[in-house]
Amino acid sequence: MLKKPISRRDLLRMAGVGGAGLLFGASGMGGVWAAAEKSVSASVAKETGKSSNGEFVDFYGKHQAGITTPAQDFLVFAAFDLTTESLADVKKLFQTWTKASAAMAEGHMIGEANDNVNMPPSDTGEAAGLTPSRTTITFGVGASFFDSRYGLAAKKPAPLADLPPFGGDELREEWSGGDIGVQVNANDLQIAFHAIRNLARLARGKAVLRWTQEGFQRTGGADPSGATPRNLMGFKDGTNNPDTSDDSVMNKVVWASASDGAGWMEGGTYMVVRRIRIRVEVWDRSTLGDQEATFGRHRASGAPLGGSQEHDAPDFDKLDEKGKPVIPVNAHMRLARGDGSIQILRRSYSYSSGMDHKMGQLDAGLLFICFNRDTSKQFTPMQKKLGQNDLLNEYIVHVGSAQFACFPGVREGGYIGETLF
Amino acid sequence: MLKKPISRRDLLRMAGVGGAGLLFGASGMGGVWAAAEKSVSASVAKETGKSSNGEFVDFYGKHQAGITTPAQDFLVFAAFDLTTESLADVKKLFQTWTKASAAMAEGHMIGEANDNVNMPPSDTGEAAGLTPSRTTITFGVGASFFDSRYGLAAKKPAPLADLPPFGGDELREEWSGGDIGVQVNANDLQIAFHAIRNLARLARGKAVLRWTQEGFQRTGGADPSGATPRNLMGFKDGTNNPDTSDDSVMNKVVWASASDGAGWMEGGTYMVVRRIRIRVEVWDRSTLGDQEATFGRHRASGAPLGGSQEHDAPDFDKLDEKGKPVIPVNAHMRLARGDGSIQILRRSYSYSSGMDHKMGQLDAGLLFICFNRDTSKQFTPMQKKLGQNDLLNEYIVHVGSAQFACFPGVREGGYIGETLF
Repeated sequence: MLKKPISRRDLLRMAGVGGAGLLFGASGMGGVWAAAEKSVSASVAKETGKSSNGEFVDFYGKHQAGITTPAQDFLVFAAFDLTTESLADVKKLFQTWTKASAAMAEGHMIGEANDNVNMPPSDTGEAAGLTPSRTTITFGVGASFFDSRYGLAAKKPAPLADLPPFGGDELREEWSGGDIGVQVNANDLQIAFHAIRNLARLARGKAVLRWTQEGFQRTGGADPSGATPRNLMGFKDGTNNPDTSDDSVMNKVVWASASDGAGWMEGGTYMVVRRIRIRVEVWDRSTLGDQEATFGRHRASGAPLGGSQEHDAPDFDKLDEKGKPVIPVNAHMRLARGDGSIQILRRSYSYSSGMDHKMGQLDAGLLFICFNRDTSKQFTPMQKKLGQNDLLNEYIVHVGSAQFACFPGVREGGYIGETLF
Repeated sequence: MLKKPISRRDLLRMAGVGGAGLLFGASGMGGVWAAAEKSVSASVAKETGKSSNGEFVDFYGKHQAGITTPAQDFLVFAAFDLTTESLADVKKLFQTWTKASAAMAEGHMIGEANDNVNMPPSDTGEAAGLTPSRTTITFGVGASFFDSRYGLAAKKPAPLADLPPFGGDELREEWSGGDIGVQVNANDLQIAFHAIRNLARLARGKAVLRWTQEGFQRTGGADPSGATPRNLMGFKDGTNNPDTSDDSVMNKVVWASASDGAGWMEGGTYMVVRRIRIRVEVWDRSTLGDQEATFGRHRASGAPLGGSQEHDAPDFDKLDEKGKPVIPVNAHMRLARGDGSIQILRRSYSYSSGMDHKMGQLDAGLLFICFNRDTSKQFTPMQKKLGQNDLLNEYIVHVGSAQFACFPGVREGGYIGETLF
């Protein structure tokens, strides 16, 4: 969107026109990896303009990608803790991460030492030859980032205050917190894993992984209709999300403004991450009627109870023959919507992490992720209400929690976090 | 392949010709789920004959699907332990599972009670509206299935003997064993999860989950060239697999014969499952030269050391300028190949399961799965050699192990395990 000199990314986009030779010359990569690069560019060229795995999402821009850009099929989320005490090191880390992330978003290997037998390869290699697959990498910093270590306490934005305890929380340290949060999405799980692993490698000596979580939704390829995906409770999830193509809505709901208090957050946003375990076995024993009352929606169509189409407006006043609201007062959808004045942008993924051997049950659920302009005014009051009354609470438990201030986007030549440091 | 009366599956295949109306009439599903079914059949119709997520793999046949059929992108593996003491119950379980598996392979919901508000839904719903995505479900039974409980001890096939301890084993109960093993593969992770979850529900009162593991490889859609996928060490994995399209090779390497001793295993095979953790951080610190020496292959091309193309024949006699073998004597590829007389069919998936918080490291690696006609003559001697000498042992540890006798295929109207009971 920004005007800028021709870049590798432009070349990548033009590969269908300019041909592969131009691309390889510009990419600075030759030799033994050429075949792999070739297959990438061939696919990109072939699929230009189509919504497909060959598609590429610009790492650079006014806002970070992975927030209002369309959701991909897979997630690998990682929280890092810094081990360095030096702000210069932190800055260097974000500079290194920026360069690597831009390369990975393009489907390139990172670094220059991938053919030198005497050195550890710069890139771990498992994504070589794969197409960009719409990879996005989104960075944020947690409240602990603003403690005494780096002299940034005064710059901590007010919305990054610790989340209060909510009803239904059974939070565990192993899925909570972190100095830095990194959300990687792609239409290929191997590519998303590769990104987190290589960011962790680049952080060596400066930061270590604190926790990670893989996630998925139905793959786009399998469902060409682009319908609202279903969560692991079998219900459509995300029906009532605000319209990401409407800038005025996004400015109100998602994007922080300098006028909110923290100038460096202009164009950034706040990300809340909650690891929500579903009590799968309990849910699966409940009747369809109970399940639909819990969500306030019909399972098959996704329509509000009493409606017939997914996007029908819910009729909260409608009563059944016994005089009770058709959409129960404690239905999840009703409580989450409230009076409609508070919105958040949800971008969640289902997860399945083997078994919880203590319980003998599947450890599966939702890695809830949302973005909002001010968590204390959006997510927190919404979740307070849900934590107290939501019918869903019988079937879920929040086992992890974190919040991150996601930086504004960065233009080519800059780096993530630049406005803060 | 077998001649048989026209079936729902035939109708599904014919959807592109005969139209959706016919299909819906025959499927016995109407009402609120019709829209979801419609989108499935439309995709199937559209994509008939192409290798895509709309494609459907027949659950029925001479052999079980998921063995010599092309590998999909995702895996959810589950081991079950039986809780019933009744052979009749076990038989009933396999009959129920057969019917459900055939429906899920077709992309249908299971059961009849999906619209009845007074009952728990038969199907958990998260795969509704998704295409079949080449789902395969493959069943086997472990050695413990033949203990005293069901009076089947005399039918235990000799190749199902317990695996001996191997060098490098650090096996953990939570990823080992099981009375029953179920491998679900699909080009959609949500569909694979759905299958295991619903099989577990159907087993209630008869069997419980013992352990599960999700797996992935690069998605087919992202890499249209169909190249050999790379494992998480960055190397191509599966280059030297035997040709699954060659029946005589498969009869020698994979398919058990009644003449092997167990008549009920005719057309079945033995599946070995090993959860192999990669010491990612150690691997990532080693030089490219060490990595290539470890596998005996070039990382970029997958060629044997000294060769230039992935499928070049390895030259084990070639010496370097110091007079040492170019492919080290303890290289993984060299030891696994041996004199070439022993082969197995590998069908492994990478896994990433968050972090091992004790170690502060990624819990990632390979869910190694192989099929062979007689484990004691194929996998076991091969692994014994690898466990003792493989250069790879420095970087991996086997943390889980299981073996299952996979039943022969079943024809429509029959059920999995029928030849045994």
